[in-house]
Amino acid sequence: MSKNNLSKGLNIVLILCVLVLLIMLKYNKGDVETNITKDEKNTTIETIHERKSVRSYTDKKVTPEQLETIVKAGMAAPTAVNKQPWAFIIIDSRETLDELGEVLPYAKMIKNAPAAIVVCGDMTKALEGQSQQFWVQDCSAATQNILLAVESMGLGAVWTAAYPSEERIKSVTDILELPEHIVPLNVIPVGYPVGTEKPKDKWKPENLHWQKWTKK
Amino acid sequence: MSKNNLSKGLNIVLILCVLVLLIMLKYNKGDVETNITKDEKNTTIETIHERKSVRSYTDKKVTPEQLETIVKAGMAAPTAVNKQPWAFIIIDSRETLDELGEVLPYAKMIKNAPAAIVVCGDMTKALEGQSQQFWVQDCSAATQNILLAVESMGLGAVWTAAYPSEERIKSVTDILELPEHIVPLNVIPVGYPVGTEKPKDKWKPENLHWQKWTKK
Repeated sequence: MSKNNLSKGLNIVLILCVLVLLIMLKYNKGDVETNITKDEKNTTIETIHERKSVRSYTDKKVTPEQLETIVKAGMAAPTAVNKQPWAFIIIDSRETLDELGEVLPYAKMIKNAPAAIVVCGDMTKALEGQSQQFWVQDCSAATQNILLAVESMGLGAVWTAAYPSEERIKSVTDILELPEHIVPLNVIPVGYPVGTEKPKDKWKPENLHWQKWTKK
Repeated sequence: MSKNNLSKGLNIVLILCVLVLLIMLKYNKGDVETNITKDEKNTTIETIHERKSVRSYTDKKVTPEQLETIVKAGMAAPTAVNKQPWAFIIIDSRETLDELGEVLPYAKMIKNAPAAIVVCGDMTKALEGQSQQFWVQDCSAATQNILLAVESMGLGAVWTAAYPSEERIKSVTDILELPEHIVPLNVIPVGYPVGTEKPKDKWKPENLHWQKWTKK
């Protein structure tokens, strides 16, 4: 190869390299922009709005690690006077899930779910007197954490109530062998969503007031 | 350029292009991996664990748009039989905030907060009979959404209870001129955190049971 031809060849290589580098830079810039958009969108608020009640699940198993991560999110909820008056039961035994599905009219979907979480109030940890009722608020906050963790992990769940129905409390208590001081608030089937359920838009401006009731 | 030299030059170009493409692929793979790590970290679950009760606020104002975004997150909570038995009151009038701070012993920090949100139950929208109580669970789920939205926006808030204390319900009702069918569940001061409060680690393995109570 003559010196002249070699330099021509190198020039072509250089031009191509610069072009490829420019493409790479553009590519990266695109990525960065996407990330900024993602942050501005606010992933947490996105999850809050994407959460839906999922009642149909695929056959895919949910791992014990996933279930523990979800319950840990539940235990991060605030509680009145930091009493943490709760207990969580994770169920991934087919037999127990089916037993619950048999007796809970509003939780029949649990028969098709690979797992469930039961959020309970612990009356030995709850406040006394009228304030004992705070366990319901505390455990409801924990439940919402659980539902959001589930959504953020690509899983689906639905809050099916036990408390205050005495019949449902008794059914869950019997099957899960709960002691007297433990009251089940709900039963939450968890699984991979089939994908049929979509989030509801519940934003109603008339439910928002400014400063005082009368000054809308 | 002779045919031979041209082909040599093109070969070099080709080899370099392949090398650059390989580098690009690796680069992209790196990016993809980073994204996966980000997802694995899970921003929503991070927010859940980062949320803390914030009682000290800077002088910085919270905008009406921010407050509306927060309440919209509240209204995305699940409710029993989709009744949405709630109403939300946003307060950013200094006078009303101070009035509330005067009468609520556990919400004195509201005097230093630029805003507050009051989550209420609407008894005309609640279920009937024993199921009326579900409004407490529904509004508690909405409250947790609010606290998480606040945290995700770099703001801070604290859940100060009104219901079931008759005295506090009366105080809030009087100041906000609430009609009889509206029951305030709580008062949530919101502002930019001074930064003193840290999240509590409430994970206690003994509060987690597997399958049944007795089989730990």
